[in-house]
Amino acid sequence: MKAEYINPFMTSLANAFETMLSCPVHRGRLAFKSDETPVFEVSGVIGLSGKAVGTVVLCLSKEVAVKAASAMLMMEATELNSDVIDAVGELTNMVAGAAKAELEELSLSISLPNVILGAGHEVHFPSNVTPICVPFSCEWGELAIEVGLVPVPEPALA
Amino acid sequence: MKAEYINPFMTSLANAFETMLSCPVHRGRLAFKSDETPVFEVSGVIGLSGKAVGTVVLCLSKEVAVKAASAMLMMEATELNSDVIDAVGELTNMVAGAAKAELEELSLSISLPNVILGAGHEVHFPSNVTPICVPFSCEWGELAIEVGLVPVPEPALA
Repeated sequence: MKAEYINPFMTSLANAFETMLSCPVHRGRLAFKSDETPVFEVSGVIGLSGKAVGTVVLCLSKEVAVKAASAMLMMEATELNSDVIDAVGELTNMVAGAAKAELEELSLSISLPNVILGAGHEVHFPSNVTPICVPFSCEWGELAIEVGLVPVPEPALA
Repeated sequence: MKAEYINPFMTSLANAFETMLSCPVHRGRLAFKSDETPVFEVSGVIGLSGKAVGTVVLCLSKEVAVKAASAMLMMEATELNSDVIDAVGELTNMVAGAAKAELEELSLSISLPNVILGAGHEVHFPSNVTPICVPFSCEWGELAIEVGLVPVPEPALA
């Protein structure tokens, strides 16, 4: 995937945490996703389609998910209940929505966010897509964003 | 979600298993997804967007995933390796693609398939979407399809 596609997602994640959650994040080193990429307990997943197709995955530790949801909902959550799950889905939706607006040339549509829970679960992409993974840290713990996005070939003119 | 949206997905899953994998499936009872819905070790997830947005999830036991991939790849797989993961993604893509063609009035686009692995992982939908879950069984074991799809409100005319 084109490296420049990742920038709007990094920016929208940093903006959402800083402005909406009042929790600045520090970005780690971009890498292609591999077997060594850490796995997280909570994944917000949203599909993208348009002139490119793909997926954005917001990967959160349980602690970050609960604290982020608490900040969004302005109430103290302590476990991965349905309010927290909805808040993680909404956060994923906001990050994807803001990035989509920046990638206007791809005319992207976004699907509904799904939130995957489970210690040690793995989110795999098709093997012909190499997602880029960007780790972040914040005072609540570790998080990451993964984006795999491939251009759709233009249909041949008749 | 409208109950009639589920029919093309049930049909496309049954067709894919019967014609491509030579493994007829038996359909169980449709239900709304709930906390009692069984969880599976392998989930193929694909986002849908258009005049409705949502997700289709193909839920497979490890056994069904490995046997289905073996039939697709015409080789004997025994574990959830990258070939099996790709085959499950492709199967999800085929089921979603065939259903999309039947739901022409929704002008759906599909994103890339992601495959989630992990014993006991849960795939959650936004709480305002109630996905319909359809269990199936076949000689290889148990599987299910879950579809959550909600219409996008038409923009108001200026």
